[in-house]
Amino acid sequence: MKTFRVQKHACCKAQPLATTCQFGKLGAMTEFFNVLPPDEARDLLFSNITAVLPTENLPTEKAHGRVLATAVTAPHALPQFRRSTMDGYAVRAADTFGASESLPAFLQVVGEVPMGQPANVQLGTGQAAIVHTGGMIPETADAVVQIEQTQTVTGNPLSVIGNQSPISNLQPPQFPFEIEVLRSVAVGQNVLQLGEDVQLDAEILPAGHILRPQDLGGLLALGIMAVDVVRRPRVGILATGDEVIAPEKTAQPGQIRDINSYTVAGLVVQAGGVPVLGGIIPDNFAALETAAAHLLAQTDMLVMSAGSSVSVRDMTVQVIDNLGEPGVLLHGVATRPGKPTIVGAVGGKPVLGLPGNPVSAMVQFDMFGVPAIYRMQGVAQMPRRGLVWAQLSQNIASESGREDYIPARLADGPEGLIAVPVFGKSNLIYTLVNADGLIKIPLNKGGLLAGDWVEVRLF
Amino acid sequence: MKTFRVQKHACCKAQPLATTCQFGKLGAMTEFFNVLPPDEARDLLFSNITAVLPTENLPTEKAHGRVLATAVTAPHALPQFRRSTMDGYAVRAADTFGASESLPAFLQVVGEVPMGQPANVQLGTGQAAIVHTGGMIPETADAVVQIEQTQTVTGNPLSVIGNQSPISNLQPPQFPFEIEVLRSVAVGQNVLQLGEDVQLDAEILPAGHILRPQDLGGLLALGIMAVDVVRRPRVGILATGDEVIAPEKTAQPGQIRDINSYTVAGLVVQAGGVPVLGGIIPDNFAALETAAAHLLAQTDMLVMSAGSSVSVRDMTVQVIDNLGEPGVLLHGVATRPGKPTIVGAVGGKPVLGLPGNPVSAMVQFDMFGVPAIYRMQGVAQMPRRGLVWAQLSQNIASESGREDYIPARLADGPEGLIAVPVFGKSNLIYTLVNADGLIKIPLNKGGLLAGDWVEVRLF
Repeated sequence: MKTFRVQKHACCKAQPLATTCQFGKLGAMTEFFNVLPPDEARDLLFSNITAVLPTENLPTEKAHGRVLATAVTAPHALPQFRRSTMDGYAVRAADTFGASESLPAFLQVVGEVPMGQPANVQLGTGQAAIVHTGGMIPETADAVVQIEQTQTVTGNPLSVIGNQSPISNLQPPQFPFEIEVLRSVAVGQNVLQLGEDVQLDAEILPAGHILRPQDLGGLLALGIMAVDVVRRPRVGILATGDEVIAPEKTAQPGQIRDINSYTVAGLVVQAGGVPVLGGIIPDNFAALETAAAHLLAQTDMLVMSAGSSVSVRDMTVQVIDNLGEPGVLLHGVATRPGKPTIVGAVGGKPVLGLPGNPVSAMVQFDMFGVPAIYRMQGVAQMPRRGLVWAQLSQNIASESGREDYIPARLADGPEGLIAVPVFGKSNLIYTLVNADGLIKIPLNKGGLLAGDWVEVRLF
Repeated sequence: MKTFRVQKHACCKAQPLATTCQFGKLGAMTEFFNVLPPDEARDLLFSNITAVLPTENLPTEKAHGRVLATAVTAPHALPQFRRSTMDGYAVRAADTFGASESLPAFLQVVGEVPMGQPANVQLGTGQAAIVHTGGMIPETADAVVQIEQTQTVTGNPLSVIGNQSPISNLQPPQFPFEIEVLRSVAVGQNVLQLGEDVQLDAEILPAGHILRPQDLGGLLALGIMAVDVVRRPRVGILATGDEVIAPEKTAQPGQIRDINSYTVAGLVVQAGGVPVLGGIIPDNFAALETAAAHLLAQTDMLVMSAGSSVSVRDMTVQVIDNLGEPGVLLHGVATRPGKPTIVGAVGGKPVLGLPGNPVSAMVQFDMFGVPAIYRMQGVAQMPRRGLVWAQLSQNIASESGREDYIPARLADGPEGLIAVPVFGKSNLIYTLVNADGLIKIPLNKGGLLAGDWVEVRLF
């Protein structure tokens, strides 16, 4: 990875205008020519993430949003008994064959299966038992006739819902009584079979799965009260800059309040990580190196939001390299905003140097930090939430060979969503506050036209 | 609203097959003919939600995901001073007019603006000052020339990044010195103007806005350390059914574990509410009425997941009506799964009776409960997260006049996402566990064809 590096400032090559490179004399500076496209940059980062997060055992109820560390298999079949999907009568299907409204089948109802109890009724030929939706099917029955497909013969003041009627003050039915079945049922009709939901020993959820509400339901349905999940990645966040002050302070001329620590922390939480704020470090090499080493030792990932000046960027590069191997992987990503992002890894942990501009910092953390948080938890497929398609309201120019992200507001249009670009410099956090998401302009697209359908990443 | 109700069981009308309605004699039962389409049902529910949630004042840092109770305006402009967007020299633009590589403008550099400090340098005609990205622009300057557009005349061993270089051991530059400007700059070029991000007193966020990471950053940038947010809605959840047991118990024949309390609780959390689990109530009218009244008194919304049998559904209707006015608003929504959903309101609070089937319960809570949670917090526009478009892998039949939701797995295809339906009865929670979302088949579409683009609600 180190082959990318040269001990020469990029401007010497990139800026033919400058007849002498004013940075060339600063031997301590390190910079890269290589600016990788985002996908390659992410792959390079991923291949250097080797740190393994420990597993923790959590009550299933509290595991919402967490990532399974190991696959889970079914300890028993679900359902564990044959259940009725209708209110009606459990029958032997053969007894109803040929039944119709003009020629009903007559059955003798010999009992009722109460909800939540075993089906202790034995059915002989021509017999039936009252069952309720979700109730157990007697062993000797193989189908359920819906109540609406039957009628009583005797004209009994019968509650067909039997003893179960919680608000009925009617007498319980007197068994046996006779019913007419007005339509035949097939074997298995209106019956949920044993294991129809899940078979015994089936893998129900793979390792790396992010637990959703239905997954918790599915686990608890099987009595799985605890699961092994990956510990949440702890992400250390440092803000740097002599001009940066804590938000609660009054800004003097030349000073600005820290934004990036909080926007990045919010993205960390959304991705399932735990932000660890390391505060604001002045533009001092020793101070930053000490703070970075200290924070990286306690966390699983380190993010530094540096200022955007060249000197500060170079300092961040140097600090990351001093932290350990492999250090800086690349300094520059073919995107706007956020080209001067520093992507690195130390001891298998991701280390990122974000541009100081708040828009760049968010876009770049979303591009590298967020996928890294998922990756460290073993998530193979990033959640698909948050991508929508919308139709562009106006032309947008872009440079080929660069992936552009343009903040946009979404509106409802006649054919779907409309994306209205919110233009502004990447120093302006309110371009993101006023936007619903980011339009992505693919790498080798020279621009987009009004009416084009674009992918908008909700933000 | 009560005009929808009739004291007669729906089957009498709906089931011409049944020559005598077996439910007709149960005077206590209440049911509705009216089955509204989901949008109308939701509007009816919304018009009955009048409960006002209190406001609470939270530290901005901790307000991620919360909903603003009042609009926020900017206490000062942002930025509060003119800032450079480049490393370079603050100049008077007029001094550079006509400058080119062959005919550079010569300027005298008289000082440097250190980061985080006021720009105390005074520029006379033909003078410039070193500025760094993000640094303050001297009052007498009106533009910034990028470092790459200049060169030193003297050949000084100059660090143009000046005293600021945190890793340079070079001598600070000796002022004054001369530079050549190789390209002219316009007034305001490379300068962030006062208030360019936000003007003083501008409304920066409206009431009802859900706070995202960038919003926290924008608030803190202005020194807004606390915000008024709506208290999270507390949602009471009751499971009912003689057959339902707590997940930690061993299921005996005929018993099933509670799923719905946990799936609904997960959806509540995702929407920004606080679930309050009321436990499992047997199919007993008095017990359910007592538990429901008790839970509703402590919460802002009540959800009962009843069994799916007619008697239990009728009991839920009766309980909701007894809780207070207006009670049940409608019993039935034109959707599958989940048609027999009971939508009600009591004292301005939403009260829902969900079908017991786990798939129906989740789909219906997502359709009514989730929007109600947002609504109660004053959110006008539901978050757009979680809707994707995908191409159907096979034909799906549907009934006109009904909105169908089909669980589906998503896969990557050549033209975008592919939605592969996961078929299964609504009693089977694993149809949702195995799905990534739900395909929506609109109300009056008879079905969909393979290759059709469909909306999939991620779940």
